Amino acid sequence: MSEVPSYQDILKAAERISGYAHKTPVLQSSFFNQISGADIYFKCENFQKIGAFKFRGAFNAISKLSKDEGKRGIITHSSGNHAQAVALASKINGYKATIVMPKNAPKVKINAVHDYGAEIVFCETTIESRQATTDQIISETGATFIHPFNNADVIAGQGTSAKELLEEIPDLDLIIAPIGGGGLISGTTIMAKSKNPEIDVVGAEPELADDAFRSFQAGSIQPVLRTDSIADGLRTSLGDLTFQIIQDKLDDIITVSEENIIREMRRVWERMKIIIEPSSAVPISALLKSKENFSGKKIGVILTGGNVDVGNLPWKTD
Amino acid sequence: MSEVPSYQDILKAAERISGYAHKTPVLQSSFFNQISGADIYFKCENFQKIGAFKFRGAFNAISKLSKDEGKRGIITHSSGNHAQAVALASKINGYKATIVMPKNAPKVKINAVHDYGAEIVFCETTIESRQATTDQIISETGATFIHPFNNADVIAGQGTSAKELLEEIPDLDLIIAPIGGGGLISGTTIMAKSKNPEIDVVGAEPELADDAFRSFQAGSIQPVLRTDSIADGLRTSLGDLTFQIIQDKLDDIITVSEENIIREMRRVWERMKIIIEPSSAVPISALLKSKENFSGKKIGVILTGGNVDVGNLPWKTD
Repeated sequence: MSEVPSYQDILKAAERISGYAHKTPVLQSSFFNQISGADIYFKCENFQKIGAFKFRGAFNAISKLSKDEGKRGIITHSSGNHAQAVALASKINGYKATIVMPKNAPKVKINAVHDYGAEIVFCETTIESRQATTDQIISETGATFIHPFNNADVIAGQGTSAKELLEEIPDLDLIIAPIGGGGLISGTTIMAKSKNPEIDVVGAEPELADDAFRSFQAGSIQPVLRTDSIADGLRTSLGDLTFQIIQDKLDDIITVSEENIIREMRRVWERMKIIIEPSSAVPISALLKSKENFSGKKIGVILTGGNVDVGNLPWKTD
Repeated sequence: MSEVPSYQDILKAAERISGYAHKTPVLQSSFFNQISGADIYFKCENFQKIGAFKFRGAFNAISKLSKDEGKRGIITHSSGNHAQAVALASKINGYKATIVMPKNAPKVKINAVHDYGAEIVFCETTIESRQATTDQIISETGATFIHPFNNADVIAGQGTSAKELLEEIPDLDLIIAPIGGGGLISGTTIMAKSKNPEIDVVGAEPELADDAFRSFQAGSIQPVLRTDSIADGLRTSLGDLTFQIIQDKLDDIITVSEENIIREMRRVWERMKIIIEPSSAVPISALLKSKENFSGKKIGVILTGGNVDVGNLPWKTD
């Protein structure tokens, strides 16, 4: 699974997810066009199944398994959107999913995974415990591990979002998406550059989780150093597969402040009347930070998800 | 302007607003389908210009004026969505708008009207002061007053939302919408019953602002008695024109508790990832309150708007 997926793999993924994943809408906002000077098309993965693009990759990888593999079960470790994606994609395929989660995971995330019918196994909060717990279950059951991003089938699935976006708006000058582990930006880059070698693809990261930016500069994988960015989906280091794709194909990476992430998240809520999670505000912040480079261009922005605790907002409430 | 608008008036309104108002999307939610047992189609006026359906009626009424009338200016009194609707519709038509607002109106609403280029005249917080201030400006300028709901052109404009909904989903069994002053439910009822005499149209109101429910029972206009419902768009008594339409044509009115309005508002945010204001949660609460009557039916719900202060939510935040 360590081969870079091809354009053909993304086309096959699109067939596989058709009828199971939503074809999400593309929205425009006169407010954001006005303040950026660009012509922006928002691909709304916040309206995707489980509330995030992650369903695309998980469903593609799981539905590609043989019946025999599937019967031995699916496993992953995650407390985020990938956990829900694997739980739902397994359920739809009729397979049993086991999700390894740290015992301090937020209750709302535990409940969501539980609601999709997966079994939850709690571990200690260390990476070592997470890996050991997962490895033990795999050795006992033969379950297939679905990595959240460093997996060619997952990357191919994530690329289907850009495929739909480019079918709707074929003449984009540029696509921008956030970078966590790099699955989405990898699939997006392969898709976009295959369809149009002239298109630019840019990644966006929080300054507090700028490992991809530093890796891109250094030419080798640099670990994420802090886990306190508000953009909880992006606190992850790259994998060897996603790093290779980013290094080979991506045009640029822009980093943005926490303050700007929160500001753009709030403005999307207020102006566009849609709920996005902090990670989705990262590419918008990047566009506005460097707007002189984007003015007059036709730009696709992937809004990655909308899973946020509306009882706990990152701005002051009365 | 006191004649009941016809189906033809709504068709003309639809032509007039075409290219100026958004054709808003219709969304479905597997969550709400599951808990209601119905097949629900949400008409998303929260994505309309100014964030609410009110733009439809205001634009229709204002763009119907003669150039001479328009040049003398437009006036209304409102601190809600109608104020923004009149301000923007006037601006698009090249007319000057004056909005009379109580001096204690929320700053966010004052700013929104100001941003659309209208002049704001502040009055005392009483109905008498509001009316006297408005009357004086009309006598000085000859401006045209655009009533927020008791106006046939406004009602015809509001009916265009149901027109679009029925074009997209022609075989609805029922449409449900909230009742404030009654402009939306009146336009919706005329539209829906003209297109399909068999369709049911139901209104929904907060228990704390159940004047339309009481008026419907009594056969005469009953005033709203309290102004403390969270559904700030619905704290209004009916007008003679809207009462007449409701009395003649509406099938039923359901009232709902504040607690349920807040619960469904929050669940729409969490499950559908869209921002709706409390008034929009009222018809959903009504559906769920009487779900034995709606189970198995194909139902249109008009989500009226999304203008809410995201820094001041009606549920507990950390």
